[in-house]
Amino acid sequence: MSVPEAPAPLDGSPATSDAEIAEARAATATTRRPTVAAMEDILFQRLPVLDHGFVRVVDYMGDDAAVVQAARVSYGRGTRQVSQDAGLIRYLMRHWHTTPFEMCELKLHVKLPIFVARQWIRHRTANVNEYSARYSILDREFYLPAPDQVAAQSSANRQGRGDGFGSEAAARVIDLLREDAERCYADYLWLLNEDGGGSEDGAGEDGAGEDGAAAPDADRPGLARELARMNLTLNTYTQWYWKTDLHNLMHFLRLRADPHAQYEIRVYAEVIADILTRWVPITAEAFRDYRLEAAQISRSGLGVIKRLLAGEAVDQKSSGLNPREWRELMAVLGRPA
Amino acid sequence: MSVPEAPAPLDGSPATSDAEIAEARAATATTRRPTVAAMEDILFQRLPVLDHGFVRVVDYMGDDAAVVQAARVSYGRGTRQVSQDAGLIRYLMRHWHTTPFEMCELKLHVKLPIFVARQWIRHRTANVNEYSARYSILDREFYLPAPDQVAAQSSANRQGRGDGFGSEAAARVIDLLREDAERCYADYLWLLNEDGGGSEDGAGEDGAGEDGAAAPDADRPGLARELARMNLTLNTYTQWYWKTDLHNLMHFLRLRADPHAQYEIRVYAEVIADILTRWVPITAEAFRDYRLEAAQISRSGLGVIKRLLAGEAVDQKSSGLNPREWRELMAVLGRPA
Amino acid sequence: MSVPEAPAPLDGSPATSDAEIAEARAATATTRRPTVAAMEDILFQRLPVLDHGFVRVVDYMGDDAAVVQAARVSYGRGTRQVSQDAGLIRYLMRHWHTTPFEMCELKLHVKLPIFVARQWIRHRTANVNEYSARYSILDREFYLPAPDQVAAQSSANRQGRGDGFGSEAAARVIDLLREDAERCYADYLWLLNEDGGGSEDGAGEDGAGEDGAAAPDADRPGLARELARMNLTLNTYTQWYWKTDLHNLMHFLRLRADPHAQYEIRVYAEVIADILTRWVPITAEAFRDYRLEAAQISRSGLGVIKRLLAGEAVDQKSSGLNPREWRELMAVLGRPA
Amino acid sequence: MSVPEAPAPLDGSPATSDAEIAEARAATATTRRPTVAAMEDILFQRLPVLDHGFVRVVDYMGDDAAVVQAARVSYGRGTRQVSQDAGLIRYLMRHWHTTPFEMCELKLHVKLPIFVARQWIRHRTANVNEYSARYSILDREFYLPAPDQVAAQSSANRQGRGDGFGSEAAARVIDLLREDAERCYADYLWLLNEDGGGSEDGAGEDGAGEDGAAAPDADRPGLARELARMNLTLNTYTQWYWKTDLHNLMHFLRLRADPHAQYEIRVYAEVIADILTRWVPITAEAFRDYRLEAAQISRSGLGVIKRLLAGEAVDQKSSGLNPREWRELMAVLGRPA
Repeated sequence: MSVPEAPAPLDGSPATSDAEIAEARAATATTRRPTVAAMEDILFQRLPVLDHGFVRVVDYMGDDAAVVQAARVSYGRGTRQVSQDAGLIRYLMRHWHTTPFEMCELKLHVKLPIFVARQWIRHRTANVNEYSARYSILDREFYLPAPDQVAAQSSANRQGRGDGFGSEAAARVIDLLREDAERCYADYLWLLNEDGGGSEDGAGEDGAGEDGAAAPDADRPGLARELARMNLTLNTYTQWYWKTDLHNLMHFLRLRADPHAQYEIRVYAEVIADILTRWVPITAEAFRDYRLEAAQISRSGLGVIKRLLAGEAVDQKSSGLNPREWRELMAVLGRPA
Repeated sequence: MSVPEAPAPLDGSPATSDAEIAEARAATATTRRPTVAAMEDILFQRLPVLDHGFVRVVDYMGDDAAVVQAARVSYGRGTRQVSQDAGLIRYLMRHWHTTPFEMCELKLHVKLPIFVARQWIRHRTANVNEYSARYSILDREFYLPAPDQVAAQSSANRQGRGDGFGSEAAARVIDLLREDAERCYADYLWLLNEDGGGSEDGAGEDGAGEDGAAAPDADRPGLARELARMNLTLNTYTQWYWKTDLHNLMHFLRLRADPHAQYEIRVYAEVIADILTRWVPITAEAFRDYRLEAAQISRSGLGVIKRLLAGEAVDQKSSGLNPREWRELMAVLGRPA
Repeated sequence: MSVPEAPAPLDGSPATSDAEIAEARAATATTRRPTVAAMEDILFQRLPVLDHGFVRVVDYMGDDAAVVQAARVSYGRGTRQVSQDAGLIRYLMRHWHTTPFEMCELKLHVKLPIFVARQWIRHRTANVNEYSARYSILDREFYLPAPDQVAAQSSANRQGRGDGFGSEAAARVIDLLREDAERCYADYLWLLNEDGGGSEDGAGEDGAGEDGAAAPDADRPGLARELARMNLTLNTYTQWYWKTDLHNLMHFLRLRADPHAQYEIRVYAEVIADILTRWVPITAEAFRDYRLEAAQISRSGLGVIKRLLAGEAVDQKSSGLNPREWRELMAVLGRPA
Repeated sequence: MSVPEAPAPLDGSPATSDAEIAEARAATATTRRPTVAAMEDILFQRLPVLDHGFVRVVDYMGDDAAVVQAARVSYGRGTRQVSQDAGLIRYLMRHWHTTPFEMCELKLHVKLPIFVARQWIRHRTANVNEYSARYSILDREFYLPAPDQVAAQSSANRQGRGDGFGSEAAARVIDLLREDAERCYADYLWLLNEDGGGSEDGAGEDGAGEDGAAAPDADRPGLARELARMNLTLNTYTQWYWKTDLHNLMHFLRLRADPHAQYEIRVYAEVIADILTRWVPITAEAFRDYRLEAAQISRSGLGVIKRLLAGEAVDQKSSGLNPREWRELMAVLGRPA
């Protein structure tokens, strides 16, 4: 099998300009397909996330009624009043009848830091086209946390963050992240022998960085892009088209809009949760009730609740739960642990 | 986990009436999304297949330009003339860059015999909602082959059909298939204690069938639907919503529009191949050139072609291919085996 | 693309004989891979299900320790006492960290009625090789429910069964199912022009059935197998190899070992649940605690529990739940609705 | 839903020590399952790739005979001589009957640079547990290309590399990559307030880097790991367990063992291709003949071959192929373009 060169001169960044977005939004057509006015309102527009990221709705397929329509193929015909549609959607959600939700699709254009993209891509039931750094040059954009997001390793949660830093300590962290990202990017341009635009970047003490960012050198070959990219830091922004169905989208949100998800992916999930509400409001509400704000109670946890309801005094020791499970159950029930 | 009863009275067949289709087609809206006029023309309409089956386009997402758009996110920005779009799509197809084709979706409503559905469902990367015979009663419709499709087991191909039967023998086969299907269906209704509508069905010599189809008996409980259905024959029609992306749709067509696919699924694939041409004409043409009408030549086969091109006389014995591979290669090259 | 005939004479049923099983069980080898003695004990043996079905463990990969091993790659190295392994597995299960469970695989050989196979195949994240009725002739075996499983359509649950029939009515149902299945099978053999073995089958009043099952007729061509099979009823047995990972296996069990699953698939799930306990006992116990016997409580349901715990008297009207949700919640809490 | 802290003290690198490997290899058991001696020989051992990477076989399921066994379930029973098994495997491969190959599984432990992991993870039909930098601290190891791999951007192939650099220029590139990776890593440790082990790293002119790598500072909180990791460069090594079935493994190899794949992932694919030959030698040979060294010839390409075989002189202009397709076809046929 042979996969040689791709065709034609395709260069530069895919970042969509304001003018292109305006032009795309101005073009309309008539369709017989289900259409959601609240989605048309935001179609193609950049919804900002973090310091340089965004989410753009590129296309969607289906709506709340399409979920109902697919479910009714399975269950047979019925009356179709709105109240019953909502009841049916809530029933499907409650009982994990997930296939009707797979009948709707959402396609997004997302700009995000590489370390966030690495978490995101673990959701396998989705379609992705990512900007290729083998093929093109990445833009000079990297994520730097806002000062109030600079926080210590959590002592309670082994994979999260705990107390914030003071403003001075936070500033020092951010400066260090910026310096390293800028130097690495300037050296990336030097390796590629590309023009950095005479910008402020890469003015490090390092010789290569210094003359690198200045201007390309006609006598020097540029390093292969697929190699040069390895010099970039993980907060460099990438972008992709990402498409998934409504069921898998909610699964993504359940994991990534959770308070224990990393802040930098959670803010994307929150923007997408707002899109969900625009797109399929009935489904979105059922999702909040039966997933996001619901609780899974174990067999032992149910036993504890029954004993409490029977008026028994139960503490961790007598509960049969281990201390962590006890704390989790008390948190769900809004009681002191 | 508890999955109790589904809500509300949902009964009867989901078969969409002409009036419902006309009503759905009359409703239009304005959208900013990509729209394909040739698809809007056929949207919701039944495209007939076999004796009682159909394919209906229920929704679609994307078009040829959406494939290009997704590929350009990967490869970077470029000029966008139509000629280049076609070149890029052909390049993607030729080199198995499949992800941009995953950015388009097609949703179909299909009515098909159960034995065809059993082949079809093996394509796992798709979303399905099938009419549930646990929940509803299947219609009295079963597939009977047309006389010219009644054929003997192939002697050359262990999984296909060979010579046709004469018209008399074919008629006898069809009669037998009809009688068994009708009797089983009449007994299905009798088991359910449902009214067969006073129809001609089930007038067998079998006592149960006889009184079964006549009229429901108020004093007799109906057998659970989930049990009664086991009495139906595999040519009974079912229906489903089926949604897949453009890449997986073409994979389906490559296997099922192939001359060696069973006739009864191939006719569905052919109708869908026509839909493909309406929907994404550039992709459809590239698919024909590089997949449907292309050939995979093995290392040994390439060796034979090189020797033939060098003017050498090669026969099966000297080719190093086994007899079957030799025949296949000669067929591809249009030469006598 | 061309898919011509498959090679070699491959005929007859794949049903594995007792002698073949004994021979396979007698052959052993030494391995460095994880091995589970309780699985080796039952390897290759038929575990009977329903009247003619079975489940056979054909192969397995991994054990409880392999789940822990994969999780520790993610979380880093730690101490490895058994007690901590169990704690880690329970933590993974409780918090839906599902990927370590995907690192184990189970391969089964299953014989099952076609209508059960049609439910089972909806679990898409699995690998399947099914006996092909295009290629081979199905055995004369069909599922007939035991008398105590013959039940009326449930009035409470629109997709389930309710009260049993009396023994006389049940016998009449079973007789009808048997007669239709036998006649259809005899006619299937007649269509194929195959010998029915001089058996009792197909002794219907129907001419074709009558002379069909008797003996093949040298002057008559056999109908293509891919066509003849459509005459079989949905309770005919088929068989397949089915392989899935531990995570998806538990998802299958959660849906199919549930009391609301159809009895005929639930009995397979129950046999597989026993295999699970043999194979990965720690995981199996965590699965029971946190999935099978756990409950998902909605936001509103949690509100009701909190009010009850605060000593408030709550009934359905004041609960904010609809009657069905109220009943479900009371059932979970073991209280009268 | 609440996903709080993971249990227990799990710290440090998961890199498996030589002693642990020797201990694991020393433990054996008896099994009835299919066993492959050539795989047992290398089980658990590190097969080195690049400067710090490796591939280790952690487990496997099935062998060539398991592919045959699964295919025979579909096709029915037949004779089982080795020659016929090879013939059946070659038939399955030639005609894209892929499901029997899905019945075997391979589980690997892989250490690889992050930019390689980002390509690799695009193969979605696989199971992955990756070392989590939210949870643990990454080792101070980054990929630096060997001098002969330092090459210019290809002018012919827009996503590959072309001519090599001279040794002096290559050394300058490598030095720059090393300096940036080391400084970023030292600053990562400083951000975490972790001890760098008094090593040479991070001796940059940058103040933070300088005092950072020296020793942890008891008065300063460590930055959350999930944040600090963003400062690492993309050539930092990560590791994961990766499991896939034989069909998808071959698909991975077809794309990644291809000469046009990036060198840094191709060397992993080549090691895995050697493992394939050990594990399933018959399948591996068929894979080479019908996939790796086969060619897909388009409808137009077949037309050109037929004309050439008929003795016609064909050049690009008269071929109907565009220049790129013409070059590709001539390359496949071993003729000058």
